[in-house]
Parts: sequence; structure tokens; C-alpha cells
Amino acid sequence: MTRTIAAETAVERGTVDLEALFAPHSIAVVGASRTVGSVGNAIITNLVHGGFTGVIYPVNPKAKSILGNRCVPNPAAIDDHVDLAVLVIPAPLVQGVVEDCASRGTKHFVVISAGFKEVGGEGVAREQNLQAVARQHGLTIVGPNCLGVINTAPTVAMNATFGRGMPNAGPFGLISQSGALCTALLDYAKGIGIGFSRFVSFGNKVAVSENDLLLALAADPLTKAILMYVEELSHGQAFIDTCQKITHGSNPKPIIAIKTGRTQEGAAAAASHTGSLAGSDEVYDAVLAQAGVMRVDSVKELFDCAEVFGDPALPQGRRTGIVTNAGGPGIMATDACIRNGMHLAKFQEYTLKSLRYQLPATASLKNPVDVIGDAKHDRYRAALDAVSSDEGVDQLMVIVTPQTMTDVTAIAEVIREAKGFCGKPIVGCLMGLVDVSAGVQLLRKSGVPAYAFPEDGMKAMAAKCRFAEWTRQPTLAAKHFDVQRDAVATLLDEELAAGRTTLVELKALEVFRHYGFPIVPYALAQSADEAAKAAAKIGCPVVLKISGPKILHKTDVGGVRLNVTDEQSARVAYDEIVASVKSKMGADTEIWGVLVQKMLPKGKEIILGMSRDPRLGPLLMFGLGGIYTEALKDVSFRLAPLRENVALEMIMDIRAHKLLRGFRGEPPADVAAIADCLLRLSQLVTDHPRIKELDINPLMVYATGQGAMVADARLILTP
Amino acid sequence: MTRTIAAETAVERGTVDLEALFAPHSIAVVGASRTVGSVGNAIITNLVHGGFTGVIYPVNPKAKSILGNRCVPNPAAIDDHVDLAVLVIPAPLVQGVVEDCASRGTKHFVVISAGFKEVGGEGVAREQNLQAVARQHGLTIVGPNCLGVINTAPTVAMNATFGRGMPNAGPFGLISQSGALCTALLDYAKGIGIGFSRFVSFGNKVAVSENDLLLALAADPLTKAILMYVEELSHGQAFIDTCQKITHGSNPKPIIAIKTGRTQEGAAAAASHTGSLAGSDEVYDAVLAQAGVMRVDSVKELFDCAEVFGDPALPQGRRTGIVTNAGGPGIMATDACIRNGMHLAKFQEYTLKSLRYQLPATASLKNPVDVIGDAKHDRYRAALDAVSSDEGVDQLMVIVTPQTMTDVTAIAEVIREAKGFCGKPIVGCLMGLVDVSAGVQLLRKSGVPAYAFPEDGMKAMAAKCRFAEWTRQPTLAAKHFDVQRDAVATLLDEELAAGRTTLVELKALEVFRHYGFPIVPYALAQSADEAAKAAAKIGCPVVLKISGPKILHKTDVGGVRLNVTDEQSARVAYDEIVASVKSKMGADTEIWGVLVQKMLPKGKEIILGMSRDPRLGPLLMFGLGGIYTEALKDVSFRLAPLRENVALEMIMDIRAHKLLRGFRGEPPADVAAIADCLLRLSQLVTDHPRIKELDINPLMVYATGQGAMVADARLILTP
Repeated sequence: MTRTIAAETAVERGTVDLEALFAPHSIAVVGASRTVGSVGNAIITNLVHGGFTGVIYPVNPKAKSILGNRCVPNPAAIDDHVDLAVLVIPAPLVQGVVEDCASRGTKHFVVISAGFKEVGGEGVAREQNLQAVARQHGLTIVGPNCLGVINTAPTVAMNATFGRGMPNAGPFGLISQSGALCTALLDYAKGIGIGFSRFVSFGNKVAVSENDLLLALAADPLTKAILMYVEELSHGQAFIDTCQKITHGSNPKPIIAIKTGRTQEGAAAAASHTGSLAGSDEVYDAVLAQAGVMRVDSVKELFDCAEVFGDPALPQGRRTGIVTNAGGPGIMATDACIRNGMHLAKFQEYTLKSLRYQLPATASLKNPVDVIGDAKHDRYRAALDAVSSDEGVDQLMVIVTPQTMTDVTAIAEVIREAKGFCGKPIVGCLMGLVDVSAGVQLLRKSGVPAYAFPEDGMKAMAAKCRFAEWTRQPTLAAKHFDVQRDAVATLLDEELAAGRTTLVELKALEVFRHYGFPIVPYALAQSADEAAKAAAKIGCPVVLKISGPKILHKTDVGGVRLNVTDEQSARVAYDEIVASVKSKMGADTEIWGVLVQKMLPKGKEIILGMSRDPRLGPLLMFGLGGIYTEALKDVSFRLAPLRENVALEMIMDIRAHKLLRGFRGEPPADVAAIADCLLRLSQLVTDHPRIKELDINPLMVYATGQGAMVADARLILTP
Repeated sequence: MTRTIAAETAVERGTVDLEALFAPHSIAVVGASRTVGSVGNAIITNLVHGGFTGVIYPVNPKAKSILGNRCVPNPAAIDDHVDLAVLVIPAPLVQGVVEDCASRGTKHFVVISAGFKEVGGEGVAREQNLQAVARQHGLTIVGPNCLGVINTAPTVAMNATFGRGMPNAGPFGLISQSGALCTALLDYAKGIGIGFSRFVSFGNKVAVSENDLLLALAADPLTKAILMYVEELSHGQAFIDTCQKITHGSNPKPIIAIKTGRTQEGAAAAASHTGSLAGSDEVYDAVLAQAGVMRVDSVKELFDCAEVFGDPALPQGRRTGIVTNAGGPGIMATDACIRNGMHLAKFQEYTLKSLRYQLPATASLKNPVDVIGDAKHDRYRAALDAVSSDEGVDQLMVIVTPQTMTDVTAIAEVIREAKGFCGKPIVGCLMGLVDVSAGVQLLRKSGVPAYAFPEDGMKAMAAKCRFAEWTRQPTLAAKHFDVQRDAVATLLDEELAAGRTTLVELKALEVFRHYGFPIVPYALAQSADEAAKAAAKIGCPVVLKISGPKILHKTDVGGVRLNVTDEQSARVAYDEIVASVKSKMGADTEIWGVLVQKMLPKGKEIILGMSRDPRLGPLLMFGLGGIYTEALKDVSFRLAPLRENVALEMIMDIRAHKLLRGFRGEPPADVAAIADCLLRLSQLVTDHPRIKELDINPLMVYATGQGAMVADARLILTP
């Protein structure tokens, strides 16, 4: 598909490579300061103490040097090419300095300064101007209103943030819309011993989008998994495309995201925070699912989930083995395994034989294997040898409770070894915090994920299973149907030209007919005779409905007759309908005629809908009719255009999808027909951005092979 | 109500007070050992190093002393009264030693030894024998197969476990069915600085039940909240009664529980672990809800939830204030607040005025209050002063992200002060792990709960809100209806005497009629004439159904006619039905007659049911009919007898309860009538334990005030 939204940033336009932002040879810090505790001082301190391998130019007209680095009074005084300029100056001065530096060849900027979009008022204009400068000169600008950028790669060792010190180097790339949250993230990560490859607090995204940064992290060989915190996304489909690219192919990288603003109240708080309209949470659930991004709900879960990807091995399936030295935690792990959608592996006979031979009589040999409380590392080794080589085991959790005789560190060493030779994902669950800490550190250092409790570990393992399955899924294109695109464009033109933004049923059905939807047979009758003829042709029973450009609520004006069983009744019904409508709406009401429709046999009633999110694009909705959609809110959403497999996924997403499989002796519903309609709908709303909102209600669906029928539809255009 | 299950333990029978178990003056450790790393050595070491204030008698025939404590060769050699004997000897020797000690006046035992019920075979008999001894002598025995008992009270300082060292003293009592898990729990608690008052690993519960221990913890003034880990409960109703008592009254104590075996696979693992049949998870959800016990799913959640109860202040409502120095975490907290069922407080005008006056212009004054990243403790103080005294605020979360200039410890001090003067619950959320740790410790020491992330804190705050509401709820008794109890007993006697365990509709309706259920009008006709008369009397349309002691599948044998509209048709239908049944089932089939029932107008179809859990008692079920129950599994459960308010709670528990409130112009359903039926059902199954299983399907429910009707029912007896 062609991208519907114009590329916004220099990176997207392909004119700038972000690599120099992450690995500059020279950095100017404009607004550097000697005052300890100030932001301008913190950045120099972090750059110096972080061991930046390039040259630092503090720009300060008053100071001679900062931390031993000789100051220059202004950027013009730097007799060197500046790869990156970090600005820590009052917002009104930013644009001038950027232009000045740009004129000397600097392409990359980090604007720490706040006072832009997020403060509203003149800040908004200030941000727009800065964006214009960035476009004009083809600059990348991280921020404004951000914490800065970090690259822990030893060849660079750049900490251009005002956070508290340099994080450990490690396999995770992190990008975040909130700067302050990052300080907490980095501190927490330091505490649990997790390290980062690259880190960007991207703030207001004036001229570097999250998509640019995701691609940069994906290209970085030191980054094994990408973590992100966002409050809103800029472009739905571009984000989906970017993430699909990153999470597929020969070197897929997982992306794990926190997206806040789940509740209305949270979204309101986000709006007052970043000045952005977040959009409904359903859109984000849909976008993240389609993008293959794992959405988590808390920072704890973000790191739990990340850690499992520190080990690059992906599981071949969901069959999970558990080895434990305590029954209770074994049960907890089993519960968590099943509740997270994985399976308890069933061991091969040779595994059981090996376990029986090597473990004491009181041990439990069935999965979960209980090596019993007095187990030392040798017994763990025997169990791990047997279980990890079982071909029915895709992945493994090893639980250690610190009992009196438990040699936790030696057992951790055994787990590390087992991981080394079996190649399958192995996760350690070293329960507790103090007595197990040396073991946990040993595992983490060896790239074996370690958790304090089974639930956290199992949740992470399940995320990895889903990711593994996702990477194996082909990325299909949107299905393309041969349709009457121009006919619809003309019809929409005419409606808009006539000042109508809400299409009445007749017109809506016509639109859907042009896109190959199965439509209930109908004809427009303009006299009682024509109604009778239409009834005869279509076959009774039929339904008669008034049709006119302004008649939206047909039933209210007596404009509908159901179950008309013969031609004569059709004739009578025609006259009665027209009379009733004229008496209720006035004799001069424009009437196009009466729609004579086949009265459809009873099927499953489905609702398909679309509403266009102003920022992210057309959001498709699928649900069962009536109470399921209205009272139970059991619906699923996806952003159009839909890839082919996504339509089915969308159908299976609702809680009540069982009802489509044939329930209580009913035949299964024609799911393929629903999927076909969803894909056509996707093409329709992608082709015609003027369609603001629509619904097909109901789509009557019959037994497998017997198709579906659009029975009624509504369509609203953007004026 | 009278307890239906006999008291099992000496404590339950009231013959023994558990206090001496927790505060013995003298302890004999039978099986004490000099071998470092052995369990018999670990217990002596823990007692000595824990600073036990009484006297320790190691019993070991071979050693002279252990850790300086003089050994005795056998219990008989102790020239002192032994309050508590701890046994660490092979299982076959346990009973003899218990009898020996009991004969010398020892009443309390902790049996660490494994090798009882949990190993099956002869272990089961061994356990039964030990239980008999306990009953005979009125002993309390903790275990067997357990870690031991701890009391951190300075006057006692007893660590009679083989865990790794003494936990910190603190406000939490912990009882656990798994010993090994406890080692992990204690280690984790040590790591996060949480302390315990008392701790019991109760193992196989041979002669001390979880209920005994709960009451002992409730009576302990140092215990502020009770944590428990269980794999199965012994008696449902007794547990409910015990917990209701503990969680109500002038000094209610919260109980927080992990109950594992949620999944079938987990329950199977539990069965092989403790040899106990766990029962379905629905029963436990019901029992814990009725008991007022907060169920959590992980150890992390257990401690998160516990910590908030370290502060005894209970919130007056769910209106939550948030003060933060970072926008992102403020949004996360808002999301978590709402998703956990609490509300964002709306500040009074004077609060806003005060905030406006004291905070910088860029601060966000609306809840969540953002004091901005450069806030130091003084700005936090100003915000906390204003927000905590707002009468629209019931509780407060204070978020601190460790930014460059953030004085975390000073801010923690401000939070502690605020907590001191406002009396409302305040929770600190000090985000991160390393830089915030001093602040976290300061808060925890002052009894202010501290969390690393907003989600965890909000979840805990919500638990406290629910607990506060629970304590304010009156403990109603089960409603007692005036019913024909004896008539039902006689009817059941007759059925069982006739060898029938499945009651046919006629008999089932009679049972429900005796208990005052609204029953569809019916009559048993024994001739075509009687059928016609009955139809006339009841009023057409009616339904005719065959009735006979062996005729269970009425429709299959042509035994049902729906919508019989006049007397003559009833006459004909009678003859046809009898003929059809005789032709299908044989001419000598016993036929009681034909049931003539009013054909009910359409209402909401409800299902009420009961199945008796072999261990926990009669489990009532409520659901909407058809797909809601069968396909969507949208049902709720409670254990009978129901307290009055629980019936309504049960109805509101299903996801689709909205459908009862009047949906799409339908009038709301008569929920009071459903509740009445549930309470009568509760009384019926409590009065008659011989009823093994029953369902009323459907209970036809009409609009508010118009009642409900039992339309069909089924009832199965225990032979």
C-alpha cells in the first residue's frame, strides 16, 4: 500500500542517517554550566564521567572551563565540525542557536529545553517554527522537552542526558516519551542489574519520530530487544509498517511497549501533560497488536518481559518443563504456565526413566519435576540433563527455593551450563531476594533470565512464545479486490455536492455493492405497481422501506413494512408508506421511492463498522449484533488496511467467538464470508478517506459455505 | 446456623489454647543434631541465634551438647515441664515420642518430620494414628511435614524452624501450607525490609487447622494483617465463619491469601504434592469472597497488598489524590487508579487556590498534581499540605521520580510528616530502586507503605478500599424462611426408599413448592377428562408433560405438548401423550399421569443450580440461561448458607448483569425475586444434605415487581 500520510521527518524522508546522532565524534553543549545541580552541569558531568570517546565543547560565555573541559563562548567559536549539539538554554533562544549551528554544518540536535508545545500558547508556535527549521535544513532534533540520549557502546560511551549517571551496558534499547519516567526506569534497571545499549528520551518529537528511533535501534547490533514508553503515537499505519519490519525477517527484534492513558481519566492526564490527544485505547490495542508489539501494563512487567529476550533462543512451541525443589512453587508455576496460554510438557518415557534412575524415591518425576527440598546442585544437574534434552520440551523453568541445604550459587551454575548445551530457552526462578542474590547475578551475567517468582517468569516466557510465533507468521499484504473504485468516488462526489453527508440506505447499499459485498436483493420502486413487480421478481416475503434523501429514521415516520407476503400486499404497503411519510414529514418531502428488499432468513447478526481516528486512521470494528456489541461491549478493532490473516484474527478476538463455531447443534457460521467482508471494508475505507464513519448492521451470516448478506448499512462522509 | 461439620481439632473443641504454642517457656528439640547443615542442627541454631527467651532442651542420645546447650538422651530425662516439643526424627518414631511427651504433660508439638500423608501408602495410616493420639490427649500438633513456627515478639523471640535465620519483627502474621515456599517468602521479605509477628508452616494439618491458626493470629496484638498460602481448605463454612469474625468487629484484621491450583493442571500438581483433592477453583473463589479474604495471585502481590495494611488507617472512600514530580508516572497512576475501581478525587476550590499560590506556574494543579521535575521537598510539602487536607480526598499517593535535583530522602521525610498529621492513608511511590532506596527505607520504617511503581501501589490501595468497605458491611445472618422442612424430608425419604435418586419434574416441583418458590401453576391429570379440567382451571395456553417415576427424557418419548390452546386439545393431547409413551417405553411403564402446566409468558431465563463439594459444602450457581451459561461460562458461585446480602452480590457478579437492568427499552428484571429464590435455595440445600445436585432451569423472571416462576427443575439425591 502507499502510505497515506506524508513523511514528516528528515529520517523518514531518507535524507539523514541517525547513526551520527548515536555516535558523534564531537558534541557541543550549549548552555553548559559550572553550577552543580543544574541541568547544564549534569550533562557535562555525565558526558565526562560516562567516558565519552569523542570531544566535548562546553558552550558558556562566562566560564573558562567545566570539569576541565575548555569552554567556548558560542558555537561559532568552535574550530571543529560539531556532529551533535545539545541545547540546554531557554526555549526562546533555541531556534536561533539551531539555525546558527546548522549553518556551520551540524545536522543533529538534542534539545533538552522545555517551554514548547507542552506549555501551550506561544510554546506551540515556537515548536512549529523549530519544526520548520528542521525541515528546511534537513536536521534531526531529539526533543524538545527531553532527558537526552545515551549510547553505552564502548566505542562511543556517550551519556548526553541529565539523568543520574551512566546505565550499565546491556542488550536493551529504550525510547521514552517521558523524560522523568526514564530516570526511574534507569534507576530500577541499575538495581536489578539490567543494562542498556541505547537510550533516547524523545520528548515532543519535533523532528525525530518514534519510528525513526525504532529503526535506529533495530539497526544497532548491540540492541537485542527494544523497550518503549509512549503516551501517543503519531501515525498508526507507519508505526505498524515500521514495527512489522523490525519484528520479522532474518534478525527479528522484539518490541515491548508501555502505552499509558488506558482510561479516560488517564488520557485526560496525558493530554494535559504532553498536549497531545491520545485517542481511544482501543485504537492503540489494535495498532500495537497489528504491529506485533507486546503491550505491557507496568514498568515491572516491561523489564520482566524484556529480560527473557536477553537470551536470543526462541522456543519452538509452548510445551514447558518445570524443575523445582519445592511443591508449592511448582503448583504456582503450573497455574501460571496454563493461565498464560502455555502447556505443561509431557515427558518422553526415556526422560522419566532417567529421572527415576537418578532422583530419590520421594521425588516427583512427572512435570513439574520436584527434586525435593534437600536437593543440591548435582540433583538439579541430573534433572536438567534429562528434562532439557526431552524432545517434547520447548522451554524450561528451573525453580530454586533457598532451603537450609540449598547451594543456590552452585545450582545457578548448573542452570547456566544446561542453558549452554541445550539451546532451548531456560529461565531461572530463584525465589527470594537476599540469599538467592548471588545466584541471580550469576544467571543474569550469563544471559539467563532470572525471576524472583514463577508468575513473573511464566508471563515473560509466554510473551516470548507469542513473539516466536509472530516471527514465523508471514507478513501478508492487504488483499486487493477488483472493485468499482471510481463509481464510489463519483457517488460520494454527488452526495457531497448535494450537501448530504449521511448516506441513506439506498446509497450506502450502492457503495457496498460497488465493492463486491453480498447485498440483500433489492429494487427501488417508484409506484405501487413497481413495488408489486419488484416483490414478484425478488420473491416474497419482502420488506418495504421508504427512500428519500432526508429520511433517516424510516420507522418513526411509518416508512417500513416487514414480512410482505404477496404482490397485492406490496402494492397496498407502497401506498400506505408513502401516505404515512407525507403525513408525518409534509407533503413536499422528497421521496425517491420505496425500497423493496428480500426479507432475509434468520442468520447470525453481525455488526461491522469503521470510525476514522483523526491521527491514526480508519479503525475497523467487528462484533456480534445486539446485546453482544451494545451491552457486553464484546467487539474487536483493527486499523485498516487489514492484512489478510488479520481479518480472521479480528473475528476470533471477541469473547463470544465460540458462538460462531456452531453452538447447541447450530451449524458453524460462515467465518470466511465475514473475513471477506472485513477485507473489502478495509479496502473501501482506505480507498476513500472521505468516508468518516460507517456501519453494516446487520450483516446476516449463514452456515459455512452459505455466505453472508448486508441487510442494512449507514455511511457518513466528511463534509 | 449450626456448623454442619464436627470440630476436628483440640483448639476447635476449645480444650486447648494455642498461646502456649507461640510463647513456650521450654522447648524440647527431639532429634537435635551437631551436624551442621542438618535440619536437627538448623533448629537449635535458629532457636539460639534467634535469642529464644526460654530454655532449650536438645534431645540427642549421642551428643553431650549442641551450641553450648546441654543435651538430654531422651524426653524422659528432662527434669522440667516441656511446653513445646519439636520433633525432627524419622516418621515411624514420631507417634511414640508424642505419646511419651504427652504422658509427661506436653500439650504442644511441632512435627517437622516428613513421611506422612504426603507420601501415600503407609504414611496415610501413620498420619491417621497420629491424629487419633492428638484427639485422645487433646494435643495441638503443627505439621507433620512442615518448616516450623516463629514468634518474633521480643518477650519470646522463638525461631523453631529450619529456615535461614530469623525474620525481622513486623506487623504481619503468616501461615503457609508449603514449607519450602516460606523460605522464599521470608528471604524476599528480608530483602524488601518487611517483618513478621508470627509465622507458621502448618504442613499436613494433622491436629491444628488453618482456622485455629487464623484465630491465634487475630488474637495477637502484634499482628496487624494476616497472610496465608493454602493449597486446599478443610471446611468451607467454618473457614468463612472464622474469617468473617476476624475481619469484622472493633479490631478487624485483613486476611490476604494465595490459593494455588487455579488451573486443572495446577490442582493436579497440588494433589500429587500434598495428597489432597483441591476441589474446583470456583469453590475457592466463592469461599474466599464470602469470607472477606483478599485473594492474590502471586507472592509479589501478597506483599504489595500486605504492606498497605502496615498503616492501620482505613480510607473513608475511594477518592484518590495523586501528587507527582513527573507527568508520565502521573498518567500511569491515574490509569491504575481507575482500572482498580477507584476514583480520581476532585479538589475543592480552596485546595486549588492554595496549590496555585504555592506551586510554580508550569505545575499542573488538577489531580494528578504535577509539582514539576525540579521540585524539592519544600514544594512537595506545600502540595501535600493542600491535598491531604482536602475533604474530597480519601487517600493519597505521592510519586517521586529521582531526577537530578530531587532530594528523595528529604521528600520521604515530608511524606512521613504528612502521614503523621492527616490521618488518611498515604502511600509513597518512590520510583526506581537504587537512588530511592534510602527514602523507601525511611518510609517503611515509619509505617508508610512504599512502592517502586504506581500500578503496584494503586492495586494495594484498592485492596484496602475494598477491605474498608467490607468492615463497614454488616454481617447478616442467613435469611430464614418459614418452610415445610419436614414435608421435604418425608418426600426425599420416600424417593430414596423407592430407590429413586433422580427426582422427576413433578417431585422436584413439589420440593420447591414446599420451600415457597413461585412455581408455574400445574396439576397432575390422570385422565383425558382431568387434563381438560386442569387446562380450564389453569387457563390456556398450557403445556402437557408426561409424568412417571422412570421417565426422565420426556421429549424423546413424545411425552410433551407445548402451547395447548383449549380444553378439547388438552383432552386429545393427553391420550396421544400416553399412547406415545407406552408405545416407546412399553405398555407396562409406570405412568403417574400428565402434568398440565401454565404455558409461561416469555421472560428472562435464569438458571439456578447447586452441586455439593465433597469437602467444602453446597455450592450455589447463578447464571443467565442458554449461551450465557453454556458457551460464555458467565456464571457466579457462592457457598450455602448465603447471607442475605450475598444473594444480590452473586447476581451482580456475572459479566452480563447489565442485561437484568433493562436493556434496549426492556424493563429491568425482578432481581429481588431472583435473590429470594437464591436464599430459599440456600436454605433448602442446607436443610437437606441428601440433595447432591439440583438445577432450576429455567427460572423465568419478569419485570420488577412481577416476580419469577420456576418453570422446570431437576434434583439428584445421594443414595
